[in-house]
Amino acid sequence: MQDQNTAETGTVDFEGGDGAYALDKGATEAILAAVYAQDKVALVGLLDPLHSADIADLLEQVSSAERSELLTLWGTEIDGEVLSELDENLRGDLIEGMSVEVMAEAFKDLESDDVVDLIEDLEEPEKVRVLDALDDAERVVVEQALQYPDETAGRLMQRELVMAPGHWSVGEMIDFLRAATDLPDRFYDAVIVDPKLQPIGKVGLSSLLASPRDTMLANIMDENFQIIPATQTQEDVAYAFNQYHMVSAPVVDGMGRLVGVITIDDAMDVLDEEAEEDLKLLAGVGDESLTDTVLDTTRQRFPWLAVNLLTSIMASVVIAQFSSVIEAIVALAVLMPIVASMGGNAGTQTLTVAVRALATKDLTSANAMRVIRREVIVGFLNGVVFAVIIGIVGLIWFGSPMLGVVLGLAMIANLLVAGMAGILVPITLTKLNIDPALASGAFVTTVTDVIGFFAFLGLAAVMLL
Amino acid sequence: MQDQNTAETGTVDFEGGDGAYALDKGATEAILAAVYAQDKVALVGLLDPLHSADIADLLEQVSSAERSELLTLWGTEIDGEVLSELDENLRGDLIEGMSVEVMAEAFKDLESDDVVDLIEDLEEPEKVRVLDALDDAERVVVEQALQYPDETAGRLMQRELVMAPGHWSVGEMIDFLRAATDLPDRFYDAVIVDPKLQPIGKVGLSSLLASPRDTMLANIMDENFQIIPATQTQEDVAYAFNQYHMVSAPVVDGMGRLVGVITIDDAMDVLDEEAEEDLKLLAGVGDESLTDTVLDTTRQRFPWLAVNLLTSIMASVVIAQFSSVIEAIVALAVLMPIVASMGGNAGTQTLTVAVRALATKDLTSANAMRVIRREVIVGFLNGVVFAVIIGIVGLIWFGSPMLGVVLGLAMIANLLVAGMAGILVPITLTKLNIDPALASGAFVTTVTDVIGFFAFLGLAAVMLL
Repeated sequence: MQDQNTAETGTVDFEGGDGAYALDKGATEAILAAVYAQDKVALVGLLDPLHSADIADLLEQVSSAERSELLTLWGTEIDGEVLSELDENLRGDLIEGMSVEVMAEAFKDLESDDVVDLIEDLEEPEKVRVLDALDDAERVVVEQALQYPDETAGRLMQRELVMAPGHWSVGEMIDFLRAATDLPDRFYDAVIVDPKLQPIGKVGLSSLLASPRDTMLANIMDENFQIIPATQTQEDVAYAFNQYHMVSAPVVDGMGRLVGVITIDDAMDVLDEEAEEDLKLLAGVGDESLTDTVLDTTRQRFPWLAVNLLTSIMASVVIAQFSSVIEAIVALAVLMPIVASMGGNAGTQTLTVAVRALATKDLTSANAMRVIRREVIVGFLNGVVFAVIIGIVGLIWFGSPMLGVVLGLAMIANLLVAGMAGILVPITLTKLNIDPALASGAFVTTVTDVIGFFAFLGLAAVMLL
Repeated sequence: MQDQNTAETGTVDFEGGDGAYALDKGATEAILAAVYAQDKVALVGLLDPLHSADIADLLEQVSSAERSELLTLWGTEIDGEVLSELDENLRGDLIEGMSVEVMAEAFKDLESDDVVDLIEDLEEPEKVRVLDALDDAERVVVEQALQYPDETAGRLMQRELVMAPGHWSVGEMIDFLRAATDLPDRFYDAVIVDPKLQPIGKVGLSSLLASPRDTMLANIMDENFQIIPATQTQEDVAYAFNQYHMVSAPVVDGMGRLVGVITIDDAMDVLDEEAEEDLKLLAGVGDESLTDTVLDTTRQRFPWLAVNLLTSIMASVVIAQFSSVIEAIVALAVLMPIVASMGGNAGTQTLTVAVRALATKDLTSANAMRVIRREVIVGFLNGVVFAVIIGIVGLIWFGSPMLGVVLGLAMIANLLVAGMAGILVPITLTKLNIDPALASGAFVTTVTDVIGFFAFLGLAAVMLL
């Protein structure tokens, strides 16, 4: 359908055309057409085959007027799966409008980790209403999870799991699974526990299936596995899943007792979230999303711009010290942004590599000194190359060899400092237990602006006047 | 051990202290101590419990002298698992030194997708040597995979998979698995195929285990599953796994026949890789890693800095047009970087949000117009707020009300343009099938620099002279 659509309209469809994504341009347009035509049968026919994640995306992408028309025409209550895929803000709005009965229905089939995920960001009154809508057993489980700090393994794990003692045979395990009525929707391992409920091994379902019925679980269990403390940060959980190619891992409480399981799909979610966070923090953007209102977005970006205003005023103060030099040689005003801008760019390059390497634990205390030295040398080498280039530009443009020399020397100084600041700022922030992506961009460009203007104008004052 | 170490040395250990990472500072130091002491027993004892991913990290983090001493003392040949976790450059160096027999031994136990991943980035002579080291069956499989374009599902998939016809019973399936000798190391589903080998369903191992032996597979199979064409880009594969919470997916050739399976751990790797790529492209860094040499790093960063040099020279050309204005009022030179810097920051904010939203398919043609409008309004609103602030700063600093007005108006113009450029540049690049993260930062800051200087100095020329 998408290909036809592209051919008909002649536009390039920027969702890509190889079917990775069910909610392509054609599908969205057809759904909105059904909404405008108030054609409920067509709408249901179009929405039915969609995955809940796609329905959530659709609801996020249409305008709020279209959204409420669509929901009214659709008539069904949004189910829990769709809710848990939705963006926080929109989810809060929709839950606000739901009755306790509708909520109870929506959450019935969700795993405990999804309910926790859904509930943790709600405002207090909505949180209480959702908890009330759960049945008693589930409410206890969710309330326990909410005891763990935000963004930890305890929040991420699901309570639904399969465990067994090591003395069971493969046959007993299979019989148990066949008879069980409350198995998790999906599971990949049985956790083998000792009598104190402490995990001592894991049996993957594939080895369970490939082993004879009379094999003892203790004989086929994998004893070399990661155990995750419930208080571990979600960032470290995601890192461990990615580093060790894990599919699921048992979570234990402070006493080492099994309390839940984290599966790779949740870890993948977190990995994606943390990558987004680093990307946005480096660019000076908070946790905003496209469904935020204009005013919310404006307000969220304000503080980062305010910090930038302060740092650029600092740079201006440096320039102001050299007003008389600029008055004498106006070419300096023309050229000075080049030095500052190159420093800012080189600093951001180093900074980004460092922030990423810290996140992937490729930059550690074992190699920090070597990496710092490397960045300083790289800064110096590129400084020398660009010093020659910009020196020649300055010479040709303004016909003054000394101006070229000043430009070149300032460039070397600033790129050297950029390399140093780009690596030292994130390492220092990490040592202070601050996210290295946070505010390090502002720090680094402040340094390169100040040094850039100071070196260039200062050298000019000494060498050209 | 780590906690003791932290206590002893009194330093803050920036690897974090909750055991997510086996290769902490203490472990690395102990291993290097064993290497310096030439204590092979201690070294083997320390390396043995480490996961191959951690051994790979260790080899990347130590200096090259330490690395070769460690490898000599260790004495064992590096196994395939460690090789496949290593950084490309280092891996190439190590493979270069290996004999064909050692390679054959190292690759014996790897899945076909890992061999492909290991081989695809090697230089041609090494590639041929590695292929020669494989046994015939495996070589055919690997060569077939290498026929698919780089960064597609065909390169990512493993050939080892479990498939069955729908008329089999659960019992037949389990008996088959128990008798099979060449099962994949890990698998999560059996793919149900029709006589033409086309996938028609998937049976998760957990439903296999939870169903009675006489159940027909066709009755418990999930028919609502994603099929991945072998030519699909790896970016779309990772997106689909993340969007639809998939654990494994069958891959088909052009005829729709099952040719392989992709599992979530590979998709997670790709997701991580693509996030890293976006982060680095936005900062103007190529595909570099910490083990690259100083010269390689310098060379890789050069082109991005060269682009920045060109764009900042363009900004200087704009400033040069207003030399006489600056000569008359030197305060303009002091204040002009503020306007440009604020525009660059606001543009980068919008750009980053847009690039991320395009990657997660949250920004599509369905909501593009609305998002563009939103960014322009946000730019305008923050422009007005900062116009007032900076206007007052200009007034107080230089005592000229008109200077304050000029600053404020230029600020509004530039933040408005920043919002527009920040959203239109990545959307346009995407429509042109260019990665929106690539070079868009340079585009956007060129626009905000040029407009920033032009608006400020131009308005000053008109209103202040």
